[in-house]
Amino acid sequence: DDLTSLLQGLIDAALLRYSKDTIARPDYALFSAGGRVVPSITTDTLVMRRSGAFGRYVLGKKDVEGLPPARALHPDNSVGSCWPFKGDQGQLGVLLSRRAVVGDVTIEHAPSEVAHDVSSAPRNVEVWGLVEGTENKANVAEYLATHPSSESAFPPSPDHLLLANVTYDPSLPNHVQTFPIDPEIVNLGVDVGIVIFRVQSNWGADFTCLYRVRVHGDAV
Amino acid sequence: DDLTSLLQGLIDAALLRYSKDTIARPDYALFSAGGRVVPSITTDTLVMRRSGAFGRYVLGKKDVEGLPPARALHPDNSVGSCWPFKGDQGQLGVLLSRRAVVGDVTIEHAPSEVAHDVSSAPRNVEVWGLVEGTENKANVAEYLATHPSSESAFPPSPDHLLLANVTYDPSLPNHVQTFPIDPEIVNLGVDVGIVIFRVQSNWGADFTCLYRVRVHGDAV
Amino acid sequence: DDLTSLLQGLIDAALLRYSKDTIARPDYALFSAGGRVVPSITTDTLVMRRSGAFGRYVLGKKDVEGLPPARALHPDNSVGSCWPFKGDQGQLGVLLSRRAVVGDVTIEHAPSEVAHDVSSAPRNVEVWGLVEGTENKANVAEYLATHPSSESAFPPSPDHLLLANVTYDPSLPNHVQTFPIDPEIVNLGVDVGIVIFRVQSNWGADFTCLYRVRVHGDAV
Ligand SMILES: [K+]
Ligand SMILES: [K+]
Ligand SMILES: [K+]
Repeated sequence: DDLTSLLQGLIDAALLRYSKDTIARPDYALFSAGGRVVPSITTDTLVMRRSGAFGRYVLGKKDVEGLPPARALHPDNSVGSCWPFKGDQGQLGVLLSRRAVVGDVTIEHAPSEVAHDVSSAPRNVEVWGLVEGTENKANVAEYLATHPSSESAFPPSPDHLLLANVTYDPSLPNHVQTFPIDPEIVNLGVDVGIVIFRVQSNWGADFTCLYRVRVHGDAV
Repeated sequence: DDLTSLLQGLIDAALLRYSKDTIARPDYALFSAGGRVVPSITTDTLVMRRSGAFGRYVLGKKDVEGLPPARALHPDNSVGSCWPFKGDQGQLGVLLSRRAVVGDVTIEHAPSEVAHDVSSAPRNVEVWGLVEGTENKANVAEYLATHPSSESAFPPSPDHLLLANVTYDPSLPNHVQTFPIDPEIVNLGVDVGIVIFRVQSNWGADFTCLYRVRVHGDAV
Repeated sequence: DDLTSLLQGLIDAALLRYSKDTIARPDYALFSAGGRVVPSITTDTLVMRRSGAFGRYVLGKKDVEGLPPARALHPDNSVGSCWPFKGDQGQLGVLLSRRAVVGDVTIEHAPSEVAHDVSSAPRNVEVWGLVEGTENKANVAEYLATHPSSESAFPPSPDHLLLANVTYDPSLPNHVQTFPIDPEIVNLGVDVGIVIFRVQSNWGADFTCLYRVRVHGDAV
């Protein structure tokens, strides 16, 4: 009896946690909370051809554009509810719902058990923050002076801070993978309003599909 | 082994219950089952300004009206999927999918762990039933004669029965909070087709956002 | 402590499995993954009248057509999110997202705990595959020659293979019910691109509402 009630408590606590979007942390990229895609720094969406003459015959479909990038800011992770882009390199610019010092990011693909194929999952992903404001820029400049290797990775300007360089692995048991930002970066205290997810490789497909990205941290 | 299978049974039962909309009870306010908002007795939706010059620059957004009140009859509780109204007082009129003797009501906000801020959660909420039909009105009149304090609370007419006066608390562990109707009220046997949620206060924000209300009971 | 960590492991594994669409198996009928309804072999959607003069008065609604058949290929199982057809007999033709040798099918109704009424749930359901291709047709012909009873059940042509004849029971604890295809059928190795769910009876209502069907198996 005592054991059963102990168990019931553990189970209920776990269920409650799961019902809170599985990881129970605020997500500043979430569309319904105000996160938005920044089109000017986001790769074009893949245009897909419907495979199979029969499908075309039955459905009368022509080529269709994939779901828009904002799909990667929605919680739904049912198979196909992702933003596709051509090849294995592309980027998603996200205007956060609040400026924040980013502490972690989460990347999620459809679970391998239900996905037809996980070769379109992202693999290596760089996560950049857009640096704005005098104080933030000074902090980043000081950091870059002592960490020269980070400086040249992003083309258009030096006003970008590499927050993390992570590897998403769809073969792991949990399809929702959270990556901490290096404490040295977090401790710079640089708050950002825009985060860029730069996919650098995938797991073999000729397109990549992002199901969901999340941005966690301390809002300012 | 016996223990493990006992545990697995407990866990599976709990999961199954959770997969059934977390509380596994019929909800007569649920939109997809036929519940609807009654506009004539529902407060106006908040018009929000997009904060931040940068957001306006990137997105070209103007002022936007919040999500409509029917959003509070949908199960989705991701952050922002709520119906906002100005200030801390407002009401939502719900036409139930079936006339019912109400036994409980449920109020749900986004979980505090994922919400950016729970100060927009409702606090004190009165739940009223619209009384129709000779027999129901007679029952209510008899009840009010012996409970005069309840009589004058609702302006336009005496044809309203105060079902419950509840306090939603976003700091509690479970964000889905069910409130029983006083048995004395339930035992009147008054069936209602319209329930009104009258928010009387919130947790400090200058607007209030209702994520979901549910109405449970015995359909007639 | 050891026990608690054992428990936590069991619970987390169960939660993870549940978060993967509850049964953690690929579904070739899923709309978001590319599954589609084939209108020419699908029954007409029910046209419903809104019950109650009061509802009509408040909402100004006229007769409305029910949700389209594609709703039965979407994961949402909140009450009312189903495809309704008149009476207790009707069929849904599904173009799979991939040709597959079907191994199991899953039928799901709203959980009886939250549904207002489960009398509209399907009861006896035949599941047919549309046979295409010389090799597949030869395999089926050979099979039918030794199993004559199956041959005449489907009207328009003999190019249909009865995959399963199942009974959905809404009174069982789990509302998500998976049915294996007879191994003798699976071993024919016949891959199909279209599966037809033929509801032959329901649980008593004058209409039937399909919440979700899934098709599992080995894609070719
Ligand atoms: K998504
Ligand atoms: K909602
Ligand atoms: K559905």
